[in-house]
Amino acid sequence: MFHTLDIIGTIAFAISGVLVAISKKMDLFGILIIAFVTAIGGGTLRDLLIGNTPVSWMRDMTYTYVILITTVVTILIKSKIDYLRTSLLLFDTIGIGLYTVVGVEKGISAGLNPIICIALGTISACFGGVIRDILCNEIPVIFRKEIYATACILGGLSYFLIRKLPIDNNVVFIIAGSVVIITRLLAVKFKIALPTIYKD
Amino acid sequence: MFHTLDIIGTIAFAISGVLVAISKKMDLFGILIIAFVTAIGGGTLRDLLIGNTPVSWMRDMTYTYVILITTVVTILIKSKIDYLRTSLLLFDTIGIGLYTVVGVEKGISAGLNPIICIALGTISACFGGVIRDILCNEIPVIFRKEIYATACILGGLSYFLIRKLPIDNNVVFIIAGSVVIITRLLAVKFKIALPTIYKD
Amino acid sequence: MFHTLDIIGTIAFAISGVLVAISKKMDLFGILIIAFVTAIGGGTLRDLLIGNTPVSWMRDMTYTYVILITTVVTILIKSKIDYLRTSLLLFDTIGIGLYTVVGVEKGISAGLNPIICIALGTISACFGGVIRDILCNEIPVIFRKEIYATACILGGLSYFLIRKLPIDNNVVFIIAGSVVIITRLLAVKFKIALPTIYKD
Repeated sequence: MFHTLDIIGTIAFAISGVLVAISKKMDLFGILIIAFVTAIGGGTLRDLLIGNTPVSWMRDMTYTYVILITTVVTILIKSKIDYLRTSLLLFDTIGIGLYTVVGVEKGISAGLNPIICIALGTISACFGGVIRDILCNEIPVIFRKEIYATACILGGLSYFLIRKLPIDNNVVFIIAGSVVIITRLLAVKFKIALPTIYKD
Repeated sequence: MFHTLDIIGTIAFAISGVLVAISKKMDLFGILIIAFVTAIGGGTLRDLLIGNTPVSWMRDMTYTYVILITTVVTILIKSKIDYLRTSLLLFDTIGIGLYTVVGVEKGISAGLNPIICIALGTISACFGGVIRDILCNEIPVIFRKEIYATACILGGLSYFLIRKLPIDNNVVFIIAGSVVIITRLLAVKFKIALPTIYKD
Repeated sequence: MFHTLDIIGTIAFAISGVLVAISKKMDLFGILIIAFVTAIGGGTLRDLLIGNTPVSWMRDMTYTYVILITTVVTILIKSKIDYLRTSLLLFDTIGIGLYTVVGVEKGISAGLNPIICIALGTISACFGGVIRDILCNEIPVIFRKEIYATACILGGLSYFLIRKLPIDNNVVFIIAGSVVIITRLLAVKFKIALPTIYKD
């Protein structure tokens, strides 16, 4: 089950990369690169930081195949995707939910402090989108006025709060991931944003 | 003593990150991220390049706590910080002085050539500011007309020149760090810059 | 022979970095940094991804000396280089040809899947130029309308197609590198580009 959800997250991130790259008038190769970077960027930085090399996507071909197929399919059905913005938000949010918890668990395996594990989960979830935006010359999404990384941090916190309860680890995984997903969806629906300090 | 000075550098870099992020109208989370990245960016790249993983801030929680507290305090007293620009320059300069020498010593421990050690020290000192400026969509400070990385290189050179003298290692550390600090402060005071090649 | 060709690629990339940095009105240190980053960026990311640390240029001083000398010479003869744009394209193309095959071979040594090896070769060849362009605030060259990374991918594919033939490994190296070089030169000469998806 774990791996299936991981793949869903990869697909969602790849789709978001394709859509951004097309809007930037990139050529076919540029689109593929942005899809790839968006999908594996977060996991790559996570693996580099904890010294888990060669990084995951280099050892498990599933990621590569999934991203290639997703990119081709997304380009082919692009006219229909425009009607699917809500689904895309949903997929993207499932993506950050899953990547957050995967990152947290990798941190625990590496024996790191809970706060660092949460940071690692947030990095895993957010960095793909950050590097996508930098390559496309936009201000990274997580710095814009929207709950994004905050949802990941809340999910990571809930992971550590509930994992000491006498429940199955898969259930902890699902609850923590759901916290990320629900927080983000509620924030988007009700346009909740963090305050800024800047004054004109 | 070594660790104390390292923490002072971390604080200075975190403050500079907070101030830049606020001026970019980022939200609270964005400010924290920029503070964190500015403070640990250089050390992280240094650790990745020499294969010292998990990277330092993941194993020693001191950095995280210091950055969190510094960020909160800086936001709270922001109105007063504006009057402290000179202190900030001083702190920032102490930061690059310390990070340069720490980077040089990590390179020596890894058995690297002196030139590479100096490069590593300069990377440690400068990369946090570079990544801060890239994330904030500005041209990195070290490429602007100002002595910055050059001060780090001079400090690194002086480290290798004096370490063969019969003096204590802590003294070598302090002298080399001071070379960085004094070079930078003199350059700012007297507006010394490197020449450019470009001709209109 | 291998090492000689590697050095030629390093020189070509360093020259291209110097020229871009000068056009951006950077100071002497900025020029040196951009030359260095362009020349070693791709190999550094490659080494980090496969966990080959300390990264190559930190262990073999040849790269550093070659880049330093190339930078100084390029600045001194800059007025003449302007007449050499064709030679520069040629050198740069030799560079990506060589770096692609070196990257592919490093991937094979690390026991990676052929597709991943080709990706690694392409990253080695292209990332230096990407990071040069990001630091100089330009849209990366590989995303512009021009065959660039595609040439690397074709070269990597040809490497795996011909390496099972009963021919010497050096010959495989030269043929695959030549595929990259010829593809790129033909694409530039005949202005061949990949199609884009974007419609106004």
